[in-house]
Amino acid sequence: MKVSEIGEFNLIDRIKSMIGRHGDDVRIGIGDDAALVSFDGSEVLLTTDVLVENVHFTNEIPPHSIGYKSIAVNISDIAAMGGKPKHILVSLSLPENTEIDFVDEMYKGMIDCAKKYNAGIVGGNMSRSSEIVINVTVTGTVEPENLRKRSTASVGDSILVTGSLGGSAAGLLAIEKGIVDQGGYHNNDLIKKHLYPKARIEESRFLAKLGSRAVEDISDSLFLDLSNICLASNVGAVIDVSKIPVALEAKEIKKAIDCNPLNLALSGGEDYELLLTASKEQAKNMIESLMIETGTELSEIGEIVEGSGVRLIDPDGEEFDYEKSGFDHFKGAK
Amino acid sequence: MKVSEIGEFNLIDRIKSMIGRHGDDVRIGIGDDAALVSFDGSEVLLTTDVLVENVHFTNEIPPHSIGYKSIAVNISDIAAMGGKPKHILVSLSLPENTEIDFVDEMYKGMIDCAKKYNAGIVGGNMSRSSEIVINVTVTGTVEPENLRKRSTASVGDSILVTGSLGGSAAGLLAIEKGIVDQGGYHNNDLIKKHLYPKARIEESRFLAKLGSRAVEDISDSLFLDLSNICLASNVGAVIDVSKIPVALEAKEIKKAIDCNPLNLALSGGEDYELLLTASKEQAKNMIESLMIETGTELSEIGEIVEGSGVRLIDPDGEEFDYEKSGFDHFKGAK
Repeated sequence: MKVSEIGEFNLIDRIKSMIGRHGDDVRIGIGDDAALVSFDGSEVLLTTDVLVENVHFTNEIPPHSIGYKSIAVNISDIAAMGGKPKHILVSLSLPENTEIDFVDEMYKGMIDCAKKYNAGIVGGNMSRSSEIVINVTVTGTVEPENLRKRSTASVGDSILVTGSLGGSAAGLLAIEKGIVDQGGYHNNDLIKKHLYPKARIEESRFLAKLGSRAVEDISDSLFLDLSNICLASNVGAVIDVSKIPVALEAKEIKKAIDCNPLNLALSGGEDYELLLTASKEQAKNMIESLMIETGTELSEIGEIVEGSGVRLIDPDGEEFDYEKSGFDHFKGAK
Repeated sequence: MKVSEIGEFNLIDRIKSMIGRHGDDVRIGIGDDAALVSFDGSEVLLTTDVLVENVHFTNEIPPHSIGYKSIAVNISDIAAMGGKPKHILVSLSLPENTEIDFVDEMYKGMIDCAKKYNAGIVGGNMSRSSEIVINVTVTGTVEPENLRKRSTASVGDSILVTGSLGGSAAGLLAIEKGIVDQGGYHNNDLIKKHLYPKARIEESRFLAKLGSRAVEDISDSLFLDLSNICLASNVGAVIDVSKIPVALEAKEIKKAIDCNPLNLALSGGEDYELLLTASKEQAKNMIESLMIETGTELSEIGEIVEGSGVRLIDPDGEEFDYEKSGFDHFKGAK
């Protein structure tokens, strides 16, 4: 049997059961956005993520952005746990004919992102390969009261999401289709969210203080990442699709390309916004307070229910007919 | 200019100067076998290394060994710092048509290696790629009195090496040339050191107590790794080639293939033995005590001198005429 036949999530489950129980110094192991381990009383978050040429980026993406993004996606995992990033390791595999200028620009992007989030590149490794592979590991710290997991959603919780969704997918479409200055948007604005995602460190830590329960960052897609929360928390979810905050970029790109902005928001992925749950009582306060504190929007999009899986509904409560989709690295569905 | 034109070490230097000064919580940054960082008083070692298909292994290498080795080479970096490994992150990039059996076997190898060194796999990541790339990050702990660096060699120090050298390169040759049961050696014995390297955790910590000074593991080659110590310590080194402990495997393979066992020992790399310096007074005691304590040989092969670079001499003190060689990932020289 091939890897493509069982898919990424099943493969991770398979490996998780092979590895089995962890030692006492492992608070959170495989299956969340980051691991939480203990060193003589200090709790440390550990996460690793990779960008592969022609899978996560093409040669149309500027090297500065590739470098920036390779760090940002990892810092987003630290944000999803309620932590702050500290140290970065960069493992870089490059073809021998890579231009030094490309490497320089990529590192400038990495350094810019590290500085933005007060983290430091402390080590790494370099190797030869036939395609560019950038593997980044980030450590972080988190106070017990700020620590958030996927597995703590409760029936009756509101489901909330920061910022807007579909902006990254719209930017990717704009790059793939070579659209510049169309749809009333300047190209740079249209593709910015794809090239320079924000990691919601400040927002996540502020929302933790206000009572967020389960938290994850949206890397694969709203649909898949909410499914992960449901699976980990042993609950179901109902989303009112009319409440999903569709990014302006996703609406703008429709003027130039035949696409469905809601589809981009629901299954586009790579927005790196926070997906979280909180009690209904807290939700309203969180929406107002987050805007005042950080200027970041927070939208209530649905509710945690008994059962399993994610159901999509119309504003009138009817079943929304939408094909389950999202990005599975091995199945490659989009 | 291309990456291949400036080489791995120069590229790392270039990046190191771009990144600049570290924060106060970074005790050792880029340029040693592992970084040493601090979390609220706990000192933590961090290291990352990658195995790339067709660069570090071919499809002739059993997947169990690939998995085992991907962890062992990182644990060897922890050994070089005098530490103990704790946690492991595995970032795996795989072609979609990879067999699940291959992945299973590889993880069994990883788990076997992790168990052997009392470390736990706590997280990771999975992605699609066109060739197999296994990136491993390992954390570790080290007591201040056991911490060892590359930069602390002193003029007059003896240069010592654990075990024997050239065994891994001999095994690789045996695999590449398809040699089985030749040269009086069973194939499994001949290739074992290449497939299942040992990380010298116990030896490094024991030698630290006996007074080792600069320590590094031999991953690139004796020549290149000793050059690293010289550069970091601002000293030179003289090696008496007749004292280099050439591995039995390197001598045996000569019976089947035209090669120079000393060349394999000097520039083969991937032996993951410890290369260290110590005062001449300590060296004799270390050799005897290490054998008694661990059963591992320790050989005195030369001396740290003023100046720079590595000089090779004959037993009679004459210059040894040997082309500088070793494995530079970008230059690809061997």
